[in-house]
Amino acid sequence: MAEGIAQLSSGERRPLARLLTRIENGDPSFRPLLPGLFAAGRGAHIVGITGPPGSGKSTLVNALITEWRKRGKRVGILAVDPSSPYTRGAILGDRIRMMEHAADRDVFMRSMASRGELGGIAATTWIAAAALDAAGYDPVLIETVGAGQSEVEVARLAETTVVVEVPEMGDEVQAIKAGLLEVADIIAVNKGDRPGADRAARQLRAMLSTAGGRVERKPPPVMVTTATAAVGVIALADAIDAHRSIARSPLEARERAANQVRRALAALAARRAMESADWDRIIDAVAARDLDPLTAAERLLDA
Amino acid sequence: MAEGIAQLSSGERRPLARLLTRIENGDPSFRPLLPGLFAAGRGAHIVGITGPPGSGKSTLVNALITEWRKRGKRVGILAVDPSSPYTRGAILGDRIRMMEHAADRDVFMRSMASRGELGGIAATTWIAAAALDAAGYDPVLIETVGAGQSEVEVARLAETTVVVEVPEMGDEVQAIKAGLLEVADIIAVNKGDRPGADRAARQLRAMLSTAGGRVERKPPPVMVTTATAAVGVIALADAIDAHRSIARSPLEARERAANQVRRALAALAARRAMESADWDRIIDAVAARDLDPLTAAERLLDA
Repeated sequence: MAEGIAQLSSGERRPLARLLTRIENGDPSFRPLLPGLFAAGRGAHIVGITGPPGSGKSTLVNALITEWRKRGKRVGILAVDPSSPYTRGAILGDRIRMMEHAADRDVFMRSMASRGELGGIAATTWIAAAALDAAGYDPVLIETVGAGQSEVEVARLAETTVVVEVPEMGDEVQAIKAGLLEVADIIAVNKGDRPGADRAARQLRAMLSTAGGRVERKPPPVMVTTATAAVGVIALADAIDAHRSIARSPLEARERAANQVRRALAALAARRAMESADWDRIIDAVAARDLDPLTAAERLLDA
Repeated sequence: MAEGIAQLSSGERRPLARLLTRIENGDPSFRPLLPGLFAAGRGAHIVGITGPPGSGKSTLVNALITEWRKRGKRVGILAVDPSSPYTRGAILGDRIRMMEHAADRDVFMRSMASRGELGGIAATTWIAAAALDAAGYDPVLIETVGAGQSEVEVARLAETTVVVEVPEMGDEVQAIKAGLLEVADIIAVNKGDRPGADRAARQLRAMLSTAGGRVERKPPPVMVTTATAAVGVIALADAIDAHRSIARSPLEARERAANQVRRALAALAARRAMESADWDRIIDAVAARDLDPLTAAERLLDA
């Protein structure tokens, strides 16, 4: 089945679509192909974009695709749906707007459902991104919705993460999103034609410059966009491109790799533990408070 | 140092405070005490409460403490600060209001800083909760702020999780918080004296009954509270108590135990991998895209 990887370079869509289905389903026969898939990578720029429903993120993504297509790029998009049953409706609505580029064979868009488990969605997404990379799409855009655990996990695996905000956010929403701001490499204040957009951008810049994220890291640029009129989109595409070399500095690449490996370790350790013959007995003991979870984890990992 | 555990039962505050400092600092000499600490547990009800700054959560926590004290309970509180540098100010403001019960020796409050790593804050918090349990506090209230990864992790380890909402939330905020609604056992719509509170509660009930969370699980009750006037607090305390027996059903206890063990496994696997002699070399290979993260994780786990 290594031909599955070789076929990717043909530029045909069907081998890629089939491979993504196997990745998404966690098909165990795919596992031996993984090193080959990684080796076939062409160095695509992996870009994450996230923001809440209502921020106009999908329209902004469409405008970015249009701009990238003008620049002659083949664009891959992975749209990650959150696992929450409460938000699904809103997100499917967003997806429909993506159809604008459906007929363009140099745009490949795939929607992926997140499957709960710790590390699960992040793991599946980076493998899928590697497949789009091997198939010659560059950039590969990973789009997520919300500000939860999955979104932060997915954002951290991207080389460049764009967080979309809207002007009229109250303090409360700002605070909720602080977790996202920490992973932002670029912030786009969208709906820039609304009153208060420039003020919101200035407030964000002030907040980011005083609080500081990671040490030795410059505050992320805050850009104002109006996706519906394609205003600010060229500048945003330029900022994303400019971040590519920063993201590939040895320090950033190492930090991202360490995060990916830690997440893979979490998923792997959990999977092995659950397959262990002792799992049920040990979990029962923890449930009965006869055993503490850390000792339980040690026993399972050393079994 | 096993005396550290034995002293907890004396009801004195200083041995407990010292033990919590060792837990928070990740003091390795504490590790051998962990099984003994767990064994000394008295079966306290572990209650999580979370909600954004501005929801009046701290006032509600104060009102709950007052109600529990009237019922003769000794109350332990762990207030978990998010790791975000952007929200810290708001949260310290909240803490100051907690001083109301500072003079009451049957109320023990401890603020804990979260320390970034995957599974880290959840692990530290459940150990600290076990210490409060062993010291005779019941309930043990774990308070977090926000809707990010840490909050969901912490909420999942509590037996009963209360999510505090406010009436005037827009659709956007609702969607952001869907991740929290999924872990809610009880929802308190606070600031119930504001216009729209009852309508917000009805909307939440409708949303929860149609979307469904986990299968075979009843939608969580949605209560309206006005913490500043102590309105609805008796009913909320009753609902929390009533949930205790549901939380201890074998199915719920097992699911919670499995989550705790999975998180402990993630933290343990990551720690061991980072201590391995191969860590730097393997991370460099992943950073250079010469090795995929899953194969890297397998090598580290099998080393």
